[in-house]
Order: sequence, then structure tokens, then C-alpha cells
Amino acid sequence: MSQGPEQHADNEIPLADANDPRLAPYRLLTDRALRDRAPSSPTEVSATENAPHGRFLAEGHYVLQRLIAAGAPVLSVMLTERRAAAAREYLSTFRGPRYLVSEELASKVVGYPVHRGVMGLVARPRPLTPAELTIDASLLVYLDGIADTENVGAIFRTAAALGADGVLVGPTTADPLYRRCVRVSMGATAVLSWARDTGGDALSRLNGGPLSGWSLVGLSPDGSTTLEHLVEHQPPRSVLILGSEGPGLGDKVRRDCDELVSIPIGADSDSLNVAATAAIALYRLAARRNGDSRHSSQTK
Amino acid sequence: MSQGPEQHADNEIPLADANDPRLAPYRLLTDRALRDRAPSSPTEVSATENAPHGRFLAEGHYVLQRLIAAGAPVLSVMLTERRAAAAREYLSTFRGPRYLVSEELASKVVGYPVHRGVMGLVARPRPLTPAELTIDASLLVYLDGIADTENVGAIFRTAAALGADGVLVGPTTADPLYRRCVRVSMGATAVLSWARDTGGDALSRLNGGPLSGWSLVGLSPDGSTTLEHLVEHQPPRSVLILGSEGPGLGDKVRRDCDELVSIPIGADSDSLNVAATAAIALYRLAARRNGDSRHSSQTK
Repeated sequence: MSQGPEQHADNEIPLADANDPRLAPYRLLTDRALRDRAPSSPTEVSATENAPHGRFLAEGHYVLQRLIAAGAPVLSVMLTERRAAAAREYLSTFRGPRYLVSEELASKVVGYPVHRGVMGLVARPRPLTPAELTIDASLLVYLDGIADTENVGAIFRTAAALGADGVLVGPTTADPLYRRCVRVSMGATAVLSWARDTGGDALSRLNGGPLSGWSLVGLSPDGSTTLEHLVEHQPPRSVLILGSEGPGLGDKVRRDCDELVSIPIGADSDSLNVAATAAIALYRLAARRNGDSRHSSQTK
Repeated sequence: MSQGPEQHADNEIPLADANDPRLAPYRLLTDRALRDRAPSSPTEVSATENAPHGRFLAEGHYVLQRLIAAGAPVLSVMLTERRAAAAREYLSTFRGPRYLVSEELASKVVGYPVHRGVMGLVARPRPLTPAELTIDASLLVYLDGIADTENVGAIFRTAAALGADGVLVGPTTADPLYRRCVRVSMGATAVLSWARDTGGDALSRLNGGPLSGWSLVGLSPDGSTTLEHLVEHQPPRSVLILGSEGPGLGDKVRRDCDELVSIPIGADSDSLNVAATAAIALYRLAARRNGDSRHSSQTK
């Protein structure tokens, strides 16, 4: 599969040195460093001038293809020679540099085996404000204190697939553009709109502002209303509020909710995982919102 | 929290040597070895005589408590001294040995940091046959080629919570009693009934046997029937058939299905994760099966 240099596209750049500064952003950087770090070299300055809000990494052909299709600002791509051919079609419109490396070099740079064969460095978009997110929206998800990146990724993936309008990310919830969130969400965290809700008292403030007129629906195993009851009298604009596995919704958040809604489960059972809860609730509310069209519209 | 030896219960045995043969089953064993390996020492013989079908490991207080409450045959428990007190209540009826070790020793034995503070060695039950599983059942899940232990665990957890009667585990699906499946399922893989469906042509054979009269419902993004349509005419006995992330249902399995059912998603979206798919489908079918009782029955 590896091709000689003469067959490389204009912007395919074979690299053989793990210390090449162009590979620096791919090198063992933490997600936080990618987001926050000031560039450390002239090469890095040019790489970050188009990324005033920081950068993140997207792994795998599927995710990168989805991001490019959605118009995400991809800054550069690192491809293993063996997998470069697979990327040519979806990268055909991509004008940035594609660094071609061996699988060994890729693993050395990244710090773990790179099986997916491709990583893209992407500029973070300007963060939306909660007010921007709520405009024209009618079904949102609020993530309260969900530190587990896999749960955050899974909920974004489901929310995008089932047609939620966006996600409000609570103060102590994991950053949706951390590597694992992007990967688990199959790129949905870079495609679906979301806004970080910062500071304490977050939900209360929103309730008096951008979420004024919205129904704040907390999902909780001890909720007094069942999901099916909520579906029957579905409010026109709802935020589904999800908490973390162990502690569930925080006390303050519970008090801010208009309703606490439960999904009935067996008496001898553990509670549902938060991602399963999100899937069930979003399915029911999105389906009701979209009416019968969901019964006939078929996508693959 | 650590207590002197004089305060230990009869069956609390402090151990300080990582090479103690009583800790052998906890020591860096692969799941497969625990399941299959013949005992290698007299101590191990006595430890395995009550486990003719092999053993598995359960991690964490919640999981162990659930297994003991369900009457699972726990053979021994390894506790860190710091967390031993937390286990006394739910272990009060447990007569087997409890090995008390330091956190350092536990991590040395297990091979990774033991944060959960407790591991139990449990005898595998005699495997059920598919015929045994289908008796008195009306809603089952079939896992077709799901090698990902996290997905297997997540589906079991949801299936147990939402009231499925059991799980048929296809030939190439991960063993539900592998450590990570047990952990992710919160112990559901050791509590919910399941049967391994071995050999090729598995579903066809079952269809002519124990699943005769059942409706075989394959969940697939390209299914021609929507889930809501299935819910409306829900057959009295259904097996929900789930495939793996990438390839989906195998060709043979697709042909064996009575219906291929989809959950409609947005046109520009990735497919739903298989665990999210399972949660939505089980919620809808279990709710319908249980009728209005689900709307009023409320659990914690």
C-alpha cells in the first residue's frame, strides 16, 4: 500500500523523525495542553494562528471524514503510510498538510499503538454561549457533573443520532473535545452544537435567562413522574438533565428541576447507566416531537 | 480503619505474602485461564473443587454485594484492610475465607491498582442450555458476534434493569463472565440468566428448536420496519438480535430473522451504539409487555 514519493499528492509530506516540530501537537500532549497551551516554537505559532480557541485531536477515518464533511477546521492530518490510500477520497478537498509516517513512528509520537491509521488536528470552534445554543432549539441535554469521558461521548453520539438540538455542558462535566469523548461519540462532540455552562449556580442562572420558558426535566431513579407520563404531556421546550453514575443529580440541580422523571426498572436491579437513560429518554422525546414522520422516514 | 488481628472475624485471614497460594486465583490470571485452567496446587484443588465449571472474578463492593444477595457461589474474597469494614455487613452471611491484604499487596497481586478495595472469586454456575433459557421466557436478547466486553456488559446491565428474561450469547460474542463484562454490567452478567449458543448455524438450529414459535427480531439500521411498528403488533415471544458495532448483523443471522427493525435516526448521523439500541428497544418492548404497571410501579 505504501507508495513512492513521486505519487504523493501535493500536500502529502513524508516525515521520518519523531522529533519533527510539525508532529509536536500529536506528541503525547494531554487534551488540556492541546486546548490551553501557548505555541512553543515558530512552527507551532503558524500551526495555532488559525486556532485561537485551542485545538483537539480526532482519531480514525470515520471520525475525520465526518468532521471534514461537516466543515470542521482541520489544521493538519497525520497518516500512516499503510492507511493513507483509504483517506485520499475524503481528504480530496483538504488543503492542509498531511504528514505521512510509518506505523512505528506514529506510535512513537502518539505514545500508544496507532491502529486507526489517522489522526487529525482540529481547531476548536469559538465556544457557543448558552444563549446562542437555546435559540431555535426545543430539545437539549444538560450534563451535570459527568466526569466520565466515555459517558459524555456516548450521550453526544446518541443525542446527535436522535435529533437533540444540542448539549449544555455543566461546570464539572468532562470536556467534550477531549480525545476519548471525540472517539466514543464518533465525532458527534465536534458536530453537534454545545455550550459550556460555567460557574456555580449554573442551572439557576440559566433558568432565569436563556432557559426561561423551558421545562427543566431531571432524570433520576427516584423521580416521581415516569418518562411515559412526561411523553404524554411533553412541554414544547425541554432540557433533559443527566447526572453522573454514582451520586446522580446534585442537590442544587435537583431543586432547579421542574420535574424529576424516572424510567421504571426492576426492584432487584441496579439503576440504568446514564448513557442508556439518555438513549431511552431522547428516543421517546425526540420521537414524540417529530411525530409520525419518524415512523416512515428511514435512514441507514 | 485498619484493625488489629484480635478484631478479625473468624474467617478474616490477614495475608502479607504476594506469593501466598491462596491468592493465586487473583494473581494476574487471564479470564480465560480462570475459566479453563486446571488447578495447579493442592491449595488450588481445594479452591476449585466447588467450581467444576471454572471461576470468575467480581470487583467492587456493589457488585459483590449484589452477587451475594442473589446467592452466587462466592469462593473467597480478597479485601484491602482499608475497605474491609465497608464489606462486613453484606459479608455477614459469607462463610468462605476473606483474605485481608494491604492496598500495595492487592495491587501487586492483581497487577493494577485495586481502587475498589474488594475482589471476589466466584464459581461459574453450570451453563444453561438455550432450551432451559427459553422456558417461561417471553423476551430475550441474542448477542451476535459482540466481541467488545464493554458493550456486552452494558447490554446485560440494561437487560436486567428493564426486565428481559435472559440473554443468548452467540458463538463469537465475549464471555459475559470476563472481568470487564461483570464490572460494566454491575454484576448483571452473574445474576441474569444466559446461555451460550455454540457452533455455526446457531440461530437456524435454535429457530427449529427452543426458539420455535418465537419471533426473531434483528435490530439493524437498514431494517424495513420501525421499532414503533413492532411495538404496536408486539409478538408474544420475541428475541431481540443485536450485532456488533461495525459490521452489524452477520448475513446468516439476517436471513434467520423474521423481521429487521430499525430505530430511525438523523440522515447525517452515525448509527446508534449497540448498547443504546438495546436500551431503547428493550425499554419499548418491556414497557409494552408489562403494560400500565410500568407507569405506576416505582423503584428507587
